[in-house]
Amino acid sequence: MPTIGILGGGQLARMLALAGAPLGLRFLVVDSAADACAGQVAPLVQADWCDFDALAGFAQRIDVATFDFENVPADTARWLSERTRVFPNPRALATSQDRLAEKTLFQRIGLATPPFAVVDSRDDLQRAVAQVGLPAILKTRRLGYDGKGQYRLRLPGDVDAAWQALGGAPAILEAFVPFERELSVVAVRGRDGELRAYPLTRNWHTDGILSASLAPAPGSQALLPVALAHARRLAEELDYVGTFALELFVRDGQLLGNEMAPRVHNSGHWTIEGAAASQFENHVRAVCGLPLGDTAALGLSVMLNWIGELPPAQAVLAEPRAHWHDYGKSPRAGRKVGHATLRADSAPEMIERLTRVGRALGREAQVAPVIEALQADASA
Amino acid sequence: MPTIGILGGGQLARMLALAGAPLGLRFLVVDSAADACAGQVAPLVQADWCDFDALAGFAQRIDVATFDFENVPADTARWLSERTRVFPNPRALATSQDRLAEKTLFQRIGLATPPFAVVDSRDDLQRAVAQVGLPAILKTRRLGYDGKGQYRLRLPGDVDAAWQALGGAPAILEAFVPFERELSVVAVRGRDGELRAYPLTRNWHTDGILSASLAPAPGSQALLPVALAHARRLAEELDYVGTFALELFVRDGQLLGNEMAPRVHNSGHWTIEGAAASQFENHVRAVCGLPLGDTAALGLSVMLNWIGELPPAQAVLAEPRAHWHDYGKSPRAGRKVGHATLRADSAPEMIERLTRVGRALGREAQVAPVIEALQADASA
Repeated sequence: MPTIGILGGGQLARMLALAGAPLGLRFLVVDSAADACAGQVAPLVQADWCDFDALAGFAQRIDVATFDFENVPADTARWLSERTRVFPNPRALATSQDRLAEKTLFQRIGLATPPFAVVDSRDDLQRAVAQVGLPAILKTRRLGYDGKGQYRLRLPGDVDAAWQALGGAPAILEAFVPFERELSVVAVRGRDGELRAYPLTRNWHTDGILSASLAPAPGSQALLPVALAHARRLAEELDYVGTFALELFVRDGQLLGNEMAPRVHNSGHWTIEGAAASQFENHVRAVCGLPLGDTAALGLSVMLNWIGELPPAQAVLAEPRAHWHDYGKSPRAGRKVGHATLRADSAPEMIERLTRVGRALGREAQVAPVIEALQADASA
Repeated sequence: MPTIGILGGGQLARMLALAGAPLGLRFLVVDSAADACAGQVAPLVQADWCDFDALAGFAQRIDVATFDFENVPADTARWLSERTRVFPNPRALATSQDRLAEKTLFQRIGLATPPFAVVDSRDDLQRAVAQVGLPAILKTRRLGYDGKGQYRLRLPGDVDAAWQALGGAPAILEAFVPFERELSVVAVRGRDGELRAYPLTRNWHTDGILSASLAPAPGSQALLPVALAHARRLAEELDYVGTFALELFVRDGQLLGNEMAPRVHNSGHWTIEGAAASQFENHVRAVCGLPLGDTAALGLSVMLNWIGELPPAQAVLAEPRAHWHDYGKSPRAGRKVGHATLRADSAPEMIERLTRVGRALGREAQVAPVIEALQADASA
């Protein structure tokens, strides 16, 4: 069976390796940190993205390369693609690394975006504020994730502070859209072009970091065909292979494209237990050219993210149909260190489970919006 | 989080490590083979069971020890238990290593067994044949598994051949009981004494090796309370901690004890996808003193064992709700190299799935008895 090389050794690489092992796949992870958590479940090569000597050895030991992290330098991906198969391809990676290229692509495939303007200088920013209006968010074109590389402008006087906060990096100014809901479509495309998608997932963020996901997203199934069509066009435009996520806003019943993640995605973690084949299994199937697995949801799933540190595991372990995921990382503010997935066959059962777990963990605020969404759907 | 040491690095250790990783548990495997397949997913110490220098180092690096293989020498288990926690305890391991001790225990807890007699000499065997009758099976008291260490006697003239075949090892002669069905109960007991059991599983063997399992076993739920009571008494007698399996025969609606496996068991592999918490997850929860997980079955599951070599994976990977398990072992006659689990919400759906997969893999004979059992239950 083939060996899959993964660039980046975080929790996504870890869950890819755990999902691929039952298929007989082997893994080799490369990360600059000796204690990268994927190294607990797969062999690890410690090297920087630009250490081409180490990467040459890595390329020789693998049959196909993929990513745990979208900010691997595009040059590294291209260099590697001359030596081994690389999925997703370097062009797909490069496009999603650049907010401007990404949003331009969204518009080309007919997916509306919030209004935005390109900002390469302080003067650009001044013009962009006039064009886009306020409030707005200044976002670096590159290397932003989990709310990093962003600055919110409320008043015209915020221009200088915003420009300084992002250090003058190439950016875009995006109108702040008061959306009603955040959704994501997690999909996978095979080497043969077959595309499969999981049901729409509803997401809640706190301080720019995913806090909870609910799937299938209640009351959103009417949007699924449109969301799927966008995901399909996006994947085809990029000749994408593997799992990806398309983050969407819902405003007045319409979808707006937020961003695309060229990898397995936090909002798809529920698929480990909530679907017959998880996003991780489907990603490794896709990059190895194996048939794609079933993406139908098995009942309702809620994923709760653990940021900074893990709550005590006991209450989740003692709850039926609850699943604990500890990534084996040391605690640190803002760091994703684990998650839990709760499953149920019905909304009332899920509300009960969420209420019990939220109370036991002192996480009432985290579960509250999910409960509210389930209740609103029941009374709709 | 604790590190679990596993003695034996086969597919059971591999599946224990894969199940424990999401809980944040770490593993260290010891096996005499450098290419033991659990070494693909966890660090491996290469050492013999009697290499006490290596085992001393192993004991220092772990918080608790457990087993992938019941034939680890009882002396090794006892030696280790003086240096670290060992679950199941060495007495439980020793009892299940000896067919005489095991069957004696079955009788003490009120679980009937097929008639048997102790055989320590050729004369004993002659007497045992007169006592037990023919046909009968001569089984070594120790080190037998998957049909190894057994010889079937049909005629009084078979005594010499049988005695020679087993090389004069201490044995028992067991009456050949024409049972109607083989069942197993897979259960787990926590460090606090809590016991949870999965639904009864029906099993089919070929040449002494498990070929297929079906759970929950149709038409057997009336036997569950009795089977559970036996499993509970057995575990309490042995002060057992962890997952174990009790193999049973059904004859005239009554249960007979066949043997006990002091570890996760092949007939429980379906629990990976077919229950909220698998036998592997529950074993590591138990040995770490964590709360036990939910053992209810989620629909119907069928496990098909792959012996000697893997069939082509494509047909299983392309089937909805089918799961492929390749243990990463090289092919060899009689070796367990993988399994597949098929799931369904109803017997007709399962029959359809089994028929399709059986035909695509050329394994019609392997799936036939399972289909027959599902059909018989539907028409009962």
